Amino acid sequence: MSSQLHLSQHAQRSSEQAIGFLMQQAVENADCISLAAGLVDEQSLPVTLARSAVNEVLGDEAAGRKILQYGTTQGPEPLRRVFRSYLADLEQSENELRDLPLSQIFLTTGSQQLLSLITQALFDPGDICLVAAPTYFVFIGVLQAAGARIIPVKADENGMCPDALQKTLETLKSEGQLHRVRLVYVVSYFENPSGVSVSTERRPQLLRLTQEYSTESRILLLEDAAYRELRYDGEVSPSIWSFDKERKTVILAQTFSKSFSPGVRVGLGVLPADLVKAVSDLKGNEDFGSAHLNQHVLARVLKNGSYRQHVEIVRASYREKRNAMLKACEQEFAGVPGVSWLHPSGGMYVWMRLPDHVHTGFDSEVFRQATQVEKVMYVPGELSYPFDWPARPKCEMRLSFGVQSVEGIQEGIRRLARAVKTVMKFNG
Amino acid sequence: MSSQLHLSQHAQRSSEQAIGFLMQQAVENADCISLAAGLVDEQSLPVTLARSAVNEVLGDEAAGRKILQYGTTQGPEPLRRVFRSYLADLEQSENELRDLPLSQIFLTTGSQQLLSLITQALFDPGDICLVAAPTYFVFIGVLQAAGARIIPVKADENGMCPDALQKTLETLKSEGQLHRVRLVYVVSYFENPSGVSVSTERRPQLLRLTQEYSTESRILLLEDAAYRELRYDGEVSPSIWSFDKERKTVILAQTFSKSFSPGVRVGLGVLPADLVKAVSDLKGNEDFGSAHLNQHVLARVLKNGSYRQHVEIVRASYREKRNAMLKACEQEFAGVPGVSWLHPSGGMYVWMRLPDHVHTGFDSEVFRQATQVEKVMYVPGELSYPFDWPARPKCEMRLSFGVQSVEGIQEGIRRLARAVKTVMKFNG
Repeated sequence: MSSQLHLSQHAQRSSEQAIGFLMQQAVENADCISLAAGLVDEQSLPVTLARSAVNEVLGDEAAGRKILQYGTTQGPEPLRRVFRSYLADLEQSENELRDLPLSQIFLTTGSQQLLSLITQALFDPGDICLVAAPTYFVFIGVLQAAGARIIPVKADENGMCPDALQKTLETLKSEGQLHRVRLVYVVSYFENPSGVSVSTERRPQLLRLTQEYSTESRILLLEDAAYRELRYDGEVSPSIWSFDKERKTVILAQTFSKSFSPGVRVGLGVLPADLVKAVSDLKGNEDFGSAHLNQHVLARVLKNGSYRQHVEIVRASYREKRNAMLKACEQEFAGVPGVSWLHPSGGMYVWMRLPDHVHTGFDSEVFRQATQVEKVMYVPGELSYPFDWPARPKCEMRLSFGVQSVEGIQEGIRRLARAVKTVMKFNG
Repeated sequence: MSSQLHLSQHAQRSSEQAIGFLMQQAVENADCISLAAGLVDEQSLPVTLARSAVNEVLGDEAAGRKILQYGTTQGPEPLRRVFRSYLADLEQSENELRDLPLSQIFLTTGSQQLLSLITQALFDPGDICLVAAPTYFVFIGVLQAAGARIIPVKADENGMCPDALQKTLETLKSEGQLHRVRLVYVVSYFENPSGVSVSTERRPQLLRLTQEYSTESRILLLEDAAYRELRYDGEVSPSIWSFDKERKTVILAQTFSKSFSPGVRVGLGVLPADLVKAVSDLKGNEDFGSAHLNQHVLARVLKNGSYRQHVEIVRASYREKRNAMLKACEQEFAGVPGVSWLHPSGGMYVWMRLPDHVHTGFDSEVFRQATQVEKVMYVPGELSYPFDWPARPKCEMRLSFGVQSVEGIQEGIRRLARAVKTVMKFNG
């Protein structure tokens, strides 16, 4: 018997991913204070609320049996109606989004499953996706596994720059590559990793450019709004999706993992009508539908108002942690030359930049000093760019305030500052 | 803006699938007694049990919070230990399978997700999968979406025929195609649709052939044991997996959807060690792990013994329904020439064969008479073969005793018999 196992191209492309390296580092550095983990704040997880909701939906035997039965691939229509109403609330829609057909709504296993399904539905190897630089590194991995060509587009503190998007699309057009562009990927609220949101002004601009360059085939815009409800201050921006009046361009991906519980694993997607069948076919092959019971639990807390109350608790908890991290950065990095960080209005991350020559990758002196000597772990910023992008900065760090307590955050930043100062030989 | 949406090859191949046509027929014939639906018996779904289990696992605030947090891609190790112990029980293993590394165990969203992941991990377009004829039609769809070449292998009342498997492999060898064979797919217990199990004698034979022909690259055997615990009489067969002492060839897929609840959506897989990373990478991209809460619920009922008690209730319920369907067939089809059916010892289906010239497909006279006149619906047997297989029989039907009550089964079979007799002009 030959012992050699032959893996598909897809599997081979999936093997060298940032998340894999990161998980390995997390295991190897389990004794560190983790400012790396993307887990959610555990203290505010809604144990009592979830238990009550389950008791309610399984309270009646006959109704309960239907809930323990298979649902449907997209999630049952009555539930999708509840989720549409929730979305209408977020969108401050006057007509409760009654004009949005329920057939365009998908309930998924977290929003991650939607990102994966969309990628499967759209990408053949060599097809192009435009992403902000930096962007969500797990999605970079999904694109790489699909063999996609990933082109980073400049982003600043107001999100992806329309000028840069236009320039990139124009270049692709002149190269005769516009027909390979499938998707523009935008994390519109409090992006992982940078914490930046796309400004209200830029939202319709990004949409319009996506539409304008859809001359060869339709380019879609995937709006990842995973962190949408984790807003701690600043204005409420309408979704990019809300500007897409024809609903042909934007795919909206949301999740209840951050605002309610990742262990319940419910995500919500809205798709252009003519993408529905393809994604439904793919999801049918994948699971026939996500866990039906969990969809009912979420629908219940949405309907009885307890979800909304819970989000306020979650926000208050994260706001305090965000403030603690920013304050600790100010104290501990005071006067260190060339070190700066963004002030996020939401989400779970502070994005820090060191001087260009001070690298932060797994093989860097800073990472070694942080994890081996000071016992603190972060996510190297370079993971948030396509690994084959020559221009990717190597001096950044993603610092999560998700899992640590306020004290853990303070101590973590103190240790990190010591590590950076040691490497930079800063004695100020 | 161009309105044309460009779908991937994968999505295009996913679009024309049996399950899609079937769902459409189910919607269009909603007024029929359904002997088609693959749903489970609703009356025996464990509402009280599931509610109690949730209350237990979420009973303690601190422990509950960890359960509402992210799990891990494969499911947390302590839970996988519980599932391994469950498997050891099924396998009547003396050493509790302590020699099976937990790293080779996956918790999935039903077993369907494992089938999908395995296909993604192994198949490039043109790669070959051998399947029993007939076999589980949803998996045929998954393979078609991957662009696989599907080769049916003769099966009889003892399951896939080793002689036929050998002949097929020998032919592929002589054609120089052995290097493209990735997988032998076997539903080992009470196959959907035929109700047939692979006999104990044949199990090691199928395994040995798979190993013997692994000369170019390793051929894997995917043992789909979804219906394993729905056994109503006859001997207990060891799994094919249990014969694979080196654990390099067989992938074992199981689910709790049939024996407990499809709405909770927990599946269980065991993989050869060197396939683990690929599948884990793919699953990481797909969802980071299935719903953590649900895994704890299943682990709880496995540990406290209530699962085992529940399976007995489920068995008793299905046994009664199976008996009712067989009895109704004997009464209603008595004397109709050329009509025969198999007597399943488990599972959810009775497989019926009409005379060769009496077709049963969606466009057949029998289907029309059944759904339009008599108001009863079944699954045409031809869906359970690759649609491009010239030899596929067109005169079979899959009759499910899963969802209907005993009375519904009796009435359904009565109607079906009337439809068949009308088309066959049988007045006996």
